[in-house]
Amino acid sequence: MRPDIRNGRLYLGGCDAVQLAGDYGTPLYVYSEEEIVGRFASLRETFLNRWENTRAAYACKAFCTPAMLKLVQREGMCIDVVSGGELHAAMQAGFPAGRIEFNGNNKLPSEIELAVDYGIGRIIVDGLQELALIEDVCRRRGRRMQVLFRVSPGVKADTHDYIVTGKKDSKFGIPLDAGSIYPCIRAAIDSEWVDFLGVHFHIGSQLFSVQPYLEAADVLLELLLETQSRFGYTMTELNIGGGFGISYTGEEEVRPYGYFLTPIMEKIQAFCAAREIPRPTVVVEPGRSIVGEAGTTLYTVGAIKDIPGVRKYISVDGGMSDNIRPALYHAAYTGLIANRADQPAVQRATVCGKCCESGDILLQDADLPAVETGDILAVFSTGAYGYSMASNYNSNPIPAVVLVRNGEHHLIVRRQTYGQILENAVIPDYLM
Amino acid sequence: MRPDIRNGRLYLGGCDAVQLAGDYGTPLYVYSEEEIVGRFASLRETFLNRWENTRAAYACKAFCTPAMLKLVQREGMCIDVVSGGELHAAMQAGFPAGRIEFNGNNKLPSEIELAVDYGIGRIIVDGLQELALIEDVCRRRGRRMQVLFRVSPGVKADTHDYIVTGKKDSKFGIPLDAGSIYPCIRAAIDSEWVDFLGVHFHIGSQLFSVQPYLEAADVLLELLLETQSRFGYTMTELNIGGGFGISYTGEEEVRPYGYFLTPIMEKIQAFCAAREIPRPTVVVEPGRSIVGEAGTTLYTVGAIKDIPGVRKYISVDGGMSDNIRPALYHAAYTGLIANRADQPAVQRATVCGKCCESGDILLQDADLPAVETGDILAVFSTGAYGYSMASNYNSNPIPAVVLVRNGEHHLIVRRQTYGQILENAVIPDYLM
Repeated sequence: MRPDIRNGRLYLGGCDAVQLAGDYGTPLYVYSEEEIVGRFASLRETFLNRWENTRAAYACKAFCTPAMLKLVQREGMCIDVVSGGELHAAMQAGFPAGRIEFNGNNKLPSEIELAVDYGIGRIIVDGLQELALIEDVCRRRGRRMQVLFRVSPGVKADTHDYIVTGKKDSKFGIPLDAGSIYPCIRAAIDSEWVDFLGVHFHIGSQLFSVQPYLEAADVLLELLLETQSRFGYTMTELNIGGGFGISYTGEEEVRPYGYFLTPIMEKIQAFCAAREIPRPTVVVEPGRSIVGEAGTTLYTVGAIKDIPGVRKYISVDGGMSDNIRPALYHAAYTGLIANRADQPAVQRATVCGKCCESGDILLQDADLPAVETGDILAVFSTGAYGYSMASNYNSNPIPAVVLVRNGEHHLIVRRQTYGQILENAVIPDYLM
Repeated sequence: MRPDIRNGRLYLGGCDAVQLAGDYGTPLYVYSEEEIVGRFASLRETFLNRWENTRAAYACKAFCTPAMLKLVQREGMCIDVVSGGELHAAMQAGFPAGRIEFNGNNKLPSEIELAVDYGIGRIIVDGLQELALIEDVCRRRGRRMQVLFRVSPGVKADTHDYIVTGKKDSKFGIPLDAGSIYPCIRAAIDSEWVDFLGVHFHIGSQLFSVQPYLEAADVLLELLLETQSRFGYTMTELNIGGGFGISYTGEEEVRPYGYFLTPIMEKIQAFCAAREIPRPTVVVEPGRSIVGEAGTTLYTVGAIKDIPGVRKYISVDGGMSDNIRPALYHAAYTGLIANRADQPAVQRATVCGKCCESGDILLQDADLPAVETGDILAVFSTGAYGYSMASNYNSNPIPAVVLVRNGEHHLIVRRQTYGQILENAVIPDYLM
C-alpha cells in the first residue's frame, strides 16, 4: 500500500499509470505481477516451505482469467474452483487437473461431470446428496474421485454477515452433529467410487484474527480423532480454507500469513504428536489475499459538481458496474489522482460512478488534491471481486485488464465492446 | 401477482413454466408480453390519452434488450437511456432517434458524440459542465440538440437510500439555489447549439406515495415561473421521472399510474391556468413499473440441506449472479414451486443460490410445499434490474431470456456459454 510515485505520477509495476490509462482507456483494471508473485512467495516462505505436507490452492473466484491461472500454475500452486465456468477457464488455461479442487454448496450435475471428466484432484463435498451425485457420475464414467467434506464448525467470525460462512446456520457445509456428519463419512469410506481424504472448513472472509481458525481447528481435530475411533479410518487431509484479511484503506491491522498459519500448524502438529497419529496434509485456499492488493482500477474524472454547503461530487467513467463492493458490502477504498500523485490533499469530496443510481459511490469523503476533469483516478486494492463481480449494469462494457511487471504491460482481458453486450440478443420475427 | 395455475402447474403467458425450463434450461428469465403491454395500456388510459401534450419514456436500464426495445417502439413509447451501451442497443433495434432521451450524471464525451450523431430527441443535462460538452460536440458536428436540465428538488422520498435521488445531497442534478440553476438556464437559453426545453426531476425509485412528487412539482413550477420572469423564457417541457412502486411480495400498497399522475397533472394544469401560462408537455419515465412484475425467474432445485433445529436451505442453480437485489438492497421476493403450484405450504425454508457467498440468498424464510431436487422454482417480479444487473460472478453464465405471449415462447437472449465468458481473455506469450 505504499504507492510508487515518480515525478508526481503514480507507477504500477514500473508503468506510468497515466500512460496505461491513455494506452488502454479507462476504466482499466491493472494487476501487478510482482505483488501477486510476492504473495505466493510469502506463502511459500512462511507456510509451504516451512511445513511438510502442505498445499495452497488459489481461490480463483477472487479473479479468474486464463492469464492469472497461468501465473498460478507457473508459481506451482493449486486452484480452488467453485463452478463449471471456473473449471472451464482452468481447462482453457491448461491448468493441471490434479491440482484443481472444487468447492460450492450446489454443484450442478453437469459441473460434476465436467470435473470427473477432466479428472480434477478433489471435490469438496457439501453433503450426502452431493456425494451420491458424484458416485453416480463416477460409476457412469468408470472413474474415481478424491473427496473431502466441507463442514460448518459452528464458529462465528467477526466480519460482514454476507461473508461469514463457518457458522452453523449456513448454506455451506455439513453441521457437526453426529446425525449429520457421521453418515456422510461412513458413506464416503464405504463408497467404491470415491476416496475419502478428510475435511474442509472456511470460516469467513477478510479476517484479521487467528482465534476463529484455532477454534475451528480444534473442532476438526476432534472430528479426525472421532472418525478414527468410530471407523478406524485416518483422514489424511485437512483444508482450513482462506479468509486472510487484506488492506483496503490502510487502516486494517493486516497480518502476514505466518500470523495465522504458524499457530494453526503448531496446534495441529502438537495435537497429532500427542496422540501419535500421522499429521494430515494441511491445505489453505487464499483468494483475496493473493490478488486483492495487487489490483488497482484507473478511472477518468468527468463531471465535477459542488453542491454549496453540502458536498462535492467527483464523477468517474466507471462505478458499481466494475466495482459493486462499496454498494454491496459498504466496502471502503482509498484512491489517488495518478497525475497529481504528490500533491497534497486540499479538499474532501465524494467520488461517484456513472451508473444511474445514488448508491453508486466509489469513495465516500475522500481527501483529494485539486481535481480536474480528465484527471486519472487510481482506486487501490480492487484486485479481488472487482472484475469477478463486474456487470453490464446500465449497459456499461466490462473494462479491460492489464498485467504489469518491471515496466512492461500486457493486456490480459480486452475491453468488452457495445456489440458484445448484445451478442446473444435475438429479435423474434414478429417484432421485426 | 395472481399466478395462472393449471393442473397444479404454473403458466406464464399461457406457457407451462416447467416446459419452458425444460426447453431452455435454467436459470431462465421469462417475460410476459401481455403484462408489459398491459402496463403501457394502463399508462395510455390514465395518462397519455387523458391529457394532451404528454409522453412516456421507458427507462430501459430496468431491462434493455433489442427485443424489448422493439416492443416499446411498437407500443409507440419513447425511451430513456443512460449510457452509450443503451443507446447502442436502441440503434441496433432501429429505435427512432427522436424518441430517445439521454439521462445520467456523467455522460462521457464519446457517449454525447454518439447521441448527437444519432440525432436523439433530448439530452437531460446534469450541469453546466455537461452543457459545454454538448455544445462542443454540436459545434463540431454542425448539429443542434434539445436539452432539459435535471434538477434536484431537495425532496427526500421514503425508499432505500441507494435509490433516493431527489434530495439535495445527490450526485444527480443541479441544486435549485439561484447561484447554481440560473447560470445553467441562462447558458442554455443563450446557446446557439442547444434548444432549451425545460427541466427534469427524478425523486427516487419504488415509491408508493404521490406526496413527494407533488412537492417536487411545486418546486419545479415555481422554477418555471421564475425562469419566465427572469429571462422572459417559457419552458415547454417538464419531465417528472419515474419511480412508481411495484409489488415484489404482494404486501406493498401498489398504486395504479392514475394515483400518481392524476393529482400531479391537476396540480400542473391548475397552476398554469391560474397564471395564464401555457402548460408544458409533461413526460414520465417509468422503468421498473413496466417490466418488474412482467418478469419471472425459473430455477432448478438442487441440494436440500436440513440443519437440525436451525434452518432448512434449498439451493437453486442461480443466485446473486442473476439477481443481486436481495444481497444489494435486502430486497424481498416471493416464489412458487412451478410443478407443485397448487400444493399447500408445509414448511418454512430459505432458498439460496449457488454462488460461493453466504449473502447469496434469494428467498429468506419462504413458506413452501414439500420440495424435491429437480423441482422448478419460480421467483416472481424479477423483471426489473434482474437481467440488467446480472454478472459473471463465480464465472456463472448469464441466463437466457424468453418472451412469452398467448402460449407462444420466443427466445430473446441466448444463454451465455462458458466460452463467451472468456472471449476477451488474452494470455501473454511469456505466460504460455
